[in-house]
Amino acid sequence: MKKVLVFGSTGSIGKNSLDCLRKSREDFKVIGLCAYSNTRVLMSQVKEFSPRYVCVVDEKSAKDFESACDRGVTLFKGKEGLKEFSQLSSDISVMGISGISALEPLLANIRRTKRVALANKETIVCGGSFVFSQARKYKTEILPVDSEINALYQLLGSGKRFERVYLTASGGALFDYTPKALEGVSVKDVLKHPTWDMGARITIDSATLLNKGFEAIEAHNFFNLKFDDIGIVIHRESKIHALAQFQDKTILACMYPADMRIPIAFALYYPRRCLNRIGIDFSKAFSFTFLPLPRKRFPLLEMIIDAAKKEDNSLVCLNACDEKAVDYFLKKKIKFTDIYKAMDYMYGHYLSKKLSSVGDIFYWNNWASKKTEEYLKTLC
Amino acid sequence: MKKVLVFGSTGSIGKNSLDCLRKSREDFKVIGLCAYSNTRVLMSQVKEFSPRYVCVVDEKSAKDFESACDRGVTLFKGKEGLKEFSQLSSDISVMGISGISALEPLLANIRRTKRVALANKETIVCGGSFVFSQARKYKTEILPVDSEINALYQLLGSGKRFERVYLTASGGALFDYTPKALEGVSVKDVLKHPTWDMGARITIDSATLLNKGFEAIEAHNFFNLKFDDIGIVIHRESKIHALAQFQDKTILACMYPADMRIPIAFALYYPRRCLNRIGIDFSKAFSFTFLPLPRKRFPLLEMIIDAAKKEDNSLVCLNACDEKAVDYFLKKKIKFTDIYKAMDYMYGHYLSKKLSSVGDIFYWNNWASKKTEEYLKTLC
Repeated sequence: MKKVLVFGSTGSIGKNSLDCLRKSREDFKVIGLCAYSNTRVLMSQVKEFSPRYVCVVDEKSAKDFESACDRGVTLFKGKEGLKEFSQLSSDISVMGISGISALEPLLANIRRTKRVALANKETIVCGGSFVFSQARKYKTEILPVDSEINALYQLLGSGKRFERVYLTASGGALFDYTPKALEGVSVKDVLKHPTWDMGARITIDSATLLNKGFEAIEAHNFFNLKFDDIGIVIHRESKIHALAQFQDKTILACMYPADMRIPIAFALYYPRRCLNRIGIDFSKAFSFTFLPLPRKRFPLLEMIIDAAKKEDNSLVCLNACDEKAVDYFLKKKIKFTDIYKAMDYMYGHYLSKKLSSVGDIFYWNNWASKKTEEYLKTLC
Repeated sequence: MKKVLVFGSTGSIGKNSLDCLRKSREDFKVIGLCAYSNTRVLMSQVKEFSPRYVCVVDEKSAKDFESACDRGVTLFKGKEGLKEFSQLSSDISVMGISGISALEPLLANIRRTKRVALANKETIVCGGSFVFSQARKYKTEILPVDSEINALYQLLGSGKRFERVYLTASGGALFDYTPKALEGVSVKDVLKHPTWDMGARITIDSATLLNKGFEAIEAHNFFNLKFDDIGIVIHRESKIHALAQFQDKTILACMYPADMRIPIAFALYYPRRCLNRIGIDFSKAFSFTFLPLPRKRFPLLEMIIDAAKKEDNSLVCLNACDEKAVDYFLKKKIKFTDIYKAMDYMYGHYLSKKLSSVGDIFYWNNWASKKTEEYLKTLC
């Protein structure tokens, strides 16, 4: 019986993880749930899974929760509470907290768990070297849940030597839009992802393909792949998540339906496989399309890969900028194309510095966040 | 430097093998070439590769060849010559002889080689248990060259446990024909294979999908797969050759262009990979289609799988019948649909017996061949 902590239990990854864990009560025991502020959902999860530990990060929500909470539960409150929660021991921790705020709990929890099922991209994009050196130090497995990286893990995990890999990209909600049409898109337009049901920011990042740049950086960090050996191909159906090509040009592809429960269950059960009924149905006709990436149409992808090669604070600054700009767009304060403008501005104005500590990451994150906000206000 | 024998060097597999070996002179030395009767092509191969041993199976052709042959070459002639040639030691033997006549040379050569790159299907379909027990006895590797089985080898070779596999079928040249239209097809129509350039019989067997039944039997023999766990899916583009599905419904697919040099090179170089330039080109748009198998349209596939489950002499009889019927069709003595009639006749009239020796295989092969001929004459 493996003890599981779920960080970000009320988010998309958290809910999907609990759906996997719900079906596997003989294998896993949920010992802790951590949410930011959605106490309504958290309460029902607590009732169902009876974890010993619960953490509510938002102070006000924590107070509300405390009054309704059972006596048998140890409640951790606020940011200090999250630090303590992250010190809990587990066999597996699902890291479903989104954004850079997952970095501290992740680094702390790597010391205490045997395996992290990692869904968060920003921790790897901004602090990959810190995360992996911590994991090596504490002999903690990091299993990628992000579907493309999970698919690569399934392909490369055996230690086979590949010459090149391809990440697939659905192209997002706006793939068929002309540059002119992009100017006028609404929040609703962008959130209509063709294949995946995900959080808001990642859905927007899928439309700019910044997300795919993040995945290339994940692939680079997880598997020591050179950026030039990571291709990106448009595959609108999101069934094949990654492909790996040998020197002889034979390609192995990893495919499953666009359902996050599959890579999550993989990371929970590895090296075993759980029984699952939702598969690709060969009793019906279907097709897979592949299109070359129209690079000019997705400037943020090029920008982020270019930034990654600098090995400085640029990824931290660009991530912070995108996070802020997407937030402004979601709040309808700026146009969709202003996200590109903000990113251009940031990439032209950040001060290149090496990251020598985790503290540096937060420093530059805050710096870039403020700088972006100043810039965005000129656009509102 | 690995010593290589090529059986069937002037056929499609033989020529493709020599094309691989031509580019790899630092790794492989062709020490022997064996052909049935195409002495013109054989002579040019002998000039290019300077093998020490040459075998010409057809007696008359052997005599012609002898007079033109260099003194430095040891020539083996006729069926007795083939027996001796099969006793030669090698590191790798490419078995490119087609039909059941490959069985004796294969069984003999397994004793003398470290690895067989096996392209022949009939030896496995008719005598799989004899071939594999011989290989186990002499610790000889058998690497499948047939693209679908080669793809499965690449997927299953790592020892991973899959729940189910899928073989892909192009559907052959007549896939879109109505049952009525099948009546009138010409030899030329059937030989127009949409994706593969292969020998005549296998191209016809691709149109009836008997070939896919043979591959299911190969998969069963190579990987101990149950027939119920081997699915068949129509994939017109012949780029994905096999797929393997885990219990969690994740699928790994193996793909490469429809070019036999790729699986041949795989079998030659394994576990290394050779450098190859002909790959799937992601710089262009393309699509892969998958259609459920219209089972009723391909009765021979069902028949052959049904026969395989009997574990008797039925596969030998049906293979002999198909070989003879296809020969009659190629010679324009019967209609395409008469192949189905002959197979129905054979499956209804063979005497079910266990195969207890290799001799039994030849006995039933000859019996069925004659019986088919008698029947076909009633149709001519």
